[in-house]
Amino acid sequence: MFRPEIKVLDCTVRDGGLMNNWQFSDDFVCAVFKACAAAGVDYMEIGYKSSEQSYSRDENGPWKFCADDDLKRVCDISETDMKLAAMADIGRIEHDDILPKSECALSMIRVACYVNQVDKAIDLAHRCMEKGYETTVNLMAVSKVIERDLDEALGDLAKSDIPVIYLVDSFGAMYSEQVQYLARKYLWALEGKQVGFHAHNNQQLAFANTIEAIICGCNRLDATIFGIGRGAGNCPLELLLAFLKNPKFKLGPILDAIQAHLLPLSKEIEWGYFIPYVITGILNEHPRSALKIMETDKRDDFREFYDRMVDGTPLE
Amino acid sequence: MFRPEIKVLDCTVRDGGLMNNWQFSDDFVCAVFKACAAAGVDYMEIGYKSSEQSYSRDENGPWKFCADDDLKRVCDISETDMKLAAMADIGRIEHDDILPKSECALSMIRVACYVNQVDKAIDLAHRCMEKGYETTVNLMAVSKVIERDLDEALGDLAKSDIPVIYLVDSFGAMYSEQVQYLARKYLWALEGKQVGFHAHNNQQLAFANTIEAIICGCNRLDATIFGIGRGAGNCPLELLLAFLKNPKFKLGPILDAIQAHLLPLSKEIEWGYFIPYVITGILNEHPRSALKIMETDKRDDFREFYDRMVDGTPLE
Repeated sequence: MFRPEIKVLDCTVRDGGLMNNWQFSDDFVCAVFKACAAAGVDYMEIGYKSSEQSYSRDENGPWKFCADDDLKRVCDISETDMKLAAMADIGRIEHDDILPKSECALSMIRVACYVNQVDKAIDLAHRCMEKGYETTVNLMAVSKVIERDLDEALGDLAKSDIPVIYLVDSFGAMYSEQVQYLARKYLWALEGKQVGFHAHNNQQLAFANTIEAIICGCNRLDATIFGIGRGAGNCPLELLLAFLKNPKFKLGPILDAIQAHLLPLSKEIEWGYFIPYVITGILNEHPRSALKIMETDKRDDFREFYDRMVDGTPLE
Repeated sequence: MFRPEIKVLDCTVRDGGLMNNWQFSDDFVCAVFKACAAAGVDYMEIGYKSSEQSYSRDENGPWKFCADDDLKRVCDISETDMKLAAMADIGRIEHDDILPKSECALSMIRVACYVNQVDKAIDLAHRCMEKGYETTVNLMAVSKVIERDLDEALGDLAKSDIPVIYLVDSFGAMYSEQVQYLARKYLWALEGKQVGFHAHNNQQLAFANTIEAIICGCNRLDATIFGIGRGAGNCPLELLLAFLKNPKFKLGPILDAIQAHLLPLSKEIEWGYFIPYVITGILNEHPRSALKIMETDKRDDFREFYDRMVDGTPLE
């Protein structure tokens, strides 16, 4: 699939950090940055942009905040065309926390929100645009949203100035038919804007659904090296780059990074195909119950976990 | 997806046995049998039907041969509607090795062959049909076959009496568009027959491609519990059953089997998402080089393995 409009965003550190509170070594983050730049990735989302008041620095590593000093210490953006991005969660950031683009190593702010927060997201994204950033709005958890509410949110986004809107399969619950239906809906409702896709891998469909989104016309694609990410993880960047036939993408640097950094990390923190994540994906539920059970000695009691999820009485 | 014609075949022991020379305990095979029967699976392929002269019993467990005594010792077929199947490889079996159906616990023989062996496969399958068995022909490695040769093989199969022909992605190399193209080709060329699909998971597409095959009209689907199988493994049965909305399928017994048997087994033998298998899948190559490198201390030298595969100089 060669389509020059396609842009790939690596969210290894941002989404992977959900599994270790962003306690990555500088060496690791620098290696991801260099590997993505060498591989021709368009954007690297390096973490969340959060207020220092919202979270503790004792519990969370630097990439929960993306302070400019940390960015500049680890990434030399002068040596690459790849742009840095950060995600902002509604309610976890003040407008004043965002520096003018000219003073910041970030190029893009992606505003993540639920459908009922879309007005706040549009407001935040507009303010980021005024400060000089590229912006996106990433509508989360839409696999559980009532269609009329989704249509209204898409209508509001259509009227906004935000150029890129993401379809997000937060629970790893979508099959190709849902991706096709929603991608076409987004593209139709948001005519003139770009639509992106962010997958989760609970049912081993993250890469396949990303291909489906590409076929439907989505041009902004999220992936992570070795599929790292919350719970079951994300679309593996190595698979996506091998699929995209654009010659600007190189697989070799990503294989180097897996070998030197991601494979060792996978012995320390867990993500991927674990049955509790499969079960929340199948049931179209938030992975929180699965993440919780994975921390207990009941992590391999799949049948009990499944039966309780179906009954609506997950272990707390 | 509820379509009553769909039939699911579990090949946990047959394909999984490629990773341990079918050295499964009777307890394991019996547990798979009971779990599949309780889950509503239509067929369980329990191994290969091979001549005792073709392979050594010292190196290979009983499911490389599927002798009737072994079948009867481990599986009580009187207690289930699920049928037992075995695979036969061209050249590894004599016609005399196959008992009349009335004397055998097997109901189906699946003949696996390469495109250039299709005449022999048709002959063997016809003889199996004369002995009372259901049969299929599984055309392997078609992702590397010249289209004209494939069309000729399909033409020969169309003229045969064999009722079910499988599309097989032996190298885990196909994307959804190839599956769609080939599934439609098979269905068109083999009008009046059923078409099946057998996936491999090198690019995490086994389940997604099986869904694509279903959408195209394939009604015979292969899967394995916890995705066990050669190299990267197969389509995970637990995902497939959750996708199929036919109420005859039950997920619970498969989760029980994963918990009690497959998860422990996964600590002893390896299958799944390993980068060497990814690389052979991406390059549309037989996994043999990846299987070989996985046995050496170079198993994590992904970049070297990739560069040598691209150059055509794999380590031997």
